[in-house]
Amino acid sequence: MRLRMEKLIKEQQKRIIDELSKIDGNAFTIDEWDRPNGGGGISCVLQDGNVFEKAGVNVSVVYGKLPRPAIEKMRADHKSFVSADVDSLDFFAAGLSLVLHPKNPMAPTVHLNYRFFETSDPKDVLNGKTNWWFGGGTDLTPSYLFPEDCEHFHKTIKDVCDTHDPSYYPKFKAWCDKYFYLTHRNEARGIGGIFFDDLDTDFIRQSSPASVSISDKEAQERLFSFVTDGLCSFLPAYVPIIKKRKDMPFTEQEKDWQQLRRGRYVEFNLVHDRGTSFGLRTPGSRIESILMSLPRTAKWVYMDPVSGTRTDGVESEDVEGMEREKELMEVLKNPKEWV
Amino acid sequence: MRLRMEKLIKEQQKRIIDELSKIDGNAFTIDEWDRPNGGGGISCVLQDGNVFEKAGVNVSVVYGKLPRPAIEKMRADHKSFVSADVDSLDFFAAGLSLVLHPKNPMAPTVHLNYRFFETSDPKDVLNGKTNWWFGGGTDLTPSYLFPEDCEHFHKTIKDVCDTHDPSYYPKFKAWCDKYFYLTHRNEARGIGGIFFDDLDTDFIRQSSPASVSISDKEAQERLFSFVTDGLCSFLPAYVPIIKKRKDMPFTEQEKDWQQLRRGRYVEFNLVHDRGTSFGLRTPGSRIESILMSLPRTAKWVYMDPVSGTRTDGVESEDVEGMEREKELMEVLKNPKEWV
Repeated sequence: MRLRMEKLIKEQQKRIIDELSKIDGNAFTIDEWDRPNGGGGISCVLQDGNVFEKAGVNVSVVYGKLPRPAIEKMRADHKSFVSADVDSLDFFAAGLSLVLHPKNPMAPTVHLNYRFFETSDPKDVLNGKTNWWFGGGTDLTPSYLFPEDCEHFHKTIKDVCDTHDPSYYPKFKAWCDKYFYLTHRNEARGIGGIFFDDLDTDFIRQSSPASVSISDKEAQERLFSFVTDGLCSFLPAYVPIIKKRKDMPFTEQEKDWQQLRRGRYVEFNLVHDRGTSFGLRTPGSRIESILMSLPRTAKWVYMDPVSGTRTDGVESEDVEGMEREKELMEVLKNPKEWV
Repeated sequence: MRLRMEKLIKEQQKRIIDELSKIDGNAFTIDEWDRPNGGGGISCVLQDGNVFEKAGVNVSVVYGKLPRPAIEKMRADHKSFVSADVDSLDFFAAGLSLVLHPKNPMAPTVHLNYRFFETSDPKDVLNGKTNWWFGGGTDLTPSYLFPEDCEHFHKTIKDVCDTHDPSYYPKFKAWCDKYFYLTHRNEARGIGGIFFDDLDTDFIRQSSPASVSISDKEAQERLFSFVTDGLCSFLPAYVPIIKKRKDMPFTEQEKDWQQLRRGRYVEFNLVHDRGTSFGLRTPGSRIESILMSLPRTAKWVYMDPVSGTRTDGVESEDVEGMEREKELMEVLKNPKEWV
């Protein structure tokens, strides 16, 4: 599975950057790097292009020993896969992650990550057992709302999910809304998509009565197939949207609003995102690849009339002519069903 | 002490914004706010002024019950002032904090915070005992290095420290270098200043043999006097610098470098700063006042030739003509003694 996952993400990385290069008209910079403590990766970045202000498509295949603070960030459910007295454990992680920040404020930022993890607790090694799981998802962060884009994005993902299990999309859509949420702002990062973590044999066994006695190997196959299809659906989900929006006219005020929304993206990634937090705490991490997700430019305004986080319950009246910005905030405050 | 601290910070807030307004030529917006769970504050902000891109001077006097995650962020030394079985405790906190981000890249960002805390663990209440301590400090974050500015800033602070105890400056200077450090980047946020926390009776008793048996009340008086002088030294420490730098000529490239350094400021505040983390986890916090510290604009560039965080040990060669930027990085990698 380690090798198959590595092959999948490297192939998809190539396919994705080829397609995005064509759209932008500029090539990606390709950096291959080694992780001093084990493994390495390929970071592909396009900065200040025609279409993308910053686009990063990163593959990493890393392994070694993990210290306890990093272990604790690793898994959503903090399952008791680590004994209380363990300070470090062996791990393997292979994943592809991408974040694209387009220049045009009408074109949404998009994020995707698919990953496979294996860990072994010294206790489990005695039993010849390793823990493994898949995680991933993709989500869209517009500055301006185009309902047809949101519907297309969600529908593409839902169709893929449905071919695997009709329970996946509703479950992972809700998980996404919950995960990409700025608790300190009481607002979602964007209009969601899907998010999942900890997908393992237990997950498959619990997902349907027919799978109660599925083998570990078969469960892994099913999940790998799901992750493969998820990853392959990225281009059909996003490309039609970026093509439609990249050349739309926009005003300076709209660019400004995008910059504010970019600020929220930074807040989410640095304050809440578990992947970023995990990376920043993992020794030998390639910081530039982790923080590739941050936008090229961002802005913070104290008490912005439309999006300022008001604790006094008083709504600003200084929002005339900001209907489209208010429309976005409305959806971020109350996540919607798009399909 | 609660009332005296409140009086001190409100007076100083007024003095500081009056002086800064004169320098900028614009008035501060003054927001008085209540904290739903107890207390309130006054946030004074000047955005997009002539001199300051964003200047925030905030006073807060808050109290109530604190949940455990916030308690854990509260104190540098995680002293066993909370019993293991306590989920929340009573607290009181009064502080002034300010962050000024000037427009001109030759003028440094400055941060200051002075605070007084009181907590009582239900166990201690039975003994009629509360815990109290002072924390604070100030530090300078230039984009371009002017050694005479760094010397002036440090010397002003050192002089104030020395009138209280000659051990303070070296101790708090080292603490500052350690605290305002981006571990994930292996670089300091700026050129430092002083930082201290947990200053209580124990601290005074341990600071000199003559103080071993000082009373709780007397220790508190000494620390309040130190904090008062520290706070009052802010204008003499910073005003001469901003006056000298605010109208210097600069290039677009220099403005760009400032934007990158602003990005690091955001990283520090959102990833490492304990005060911000504490605020974002405290129910009923006024988010806009906490995040007032973020710059109006910031930028992230993947693998910036001068400041990119390289894990491969290879230095970029694309840094010709960037001598002044390299000079800053050198000091951030190896904090200096300025006086």
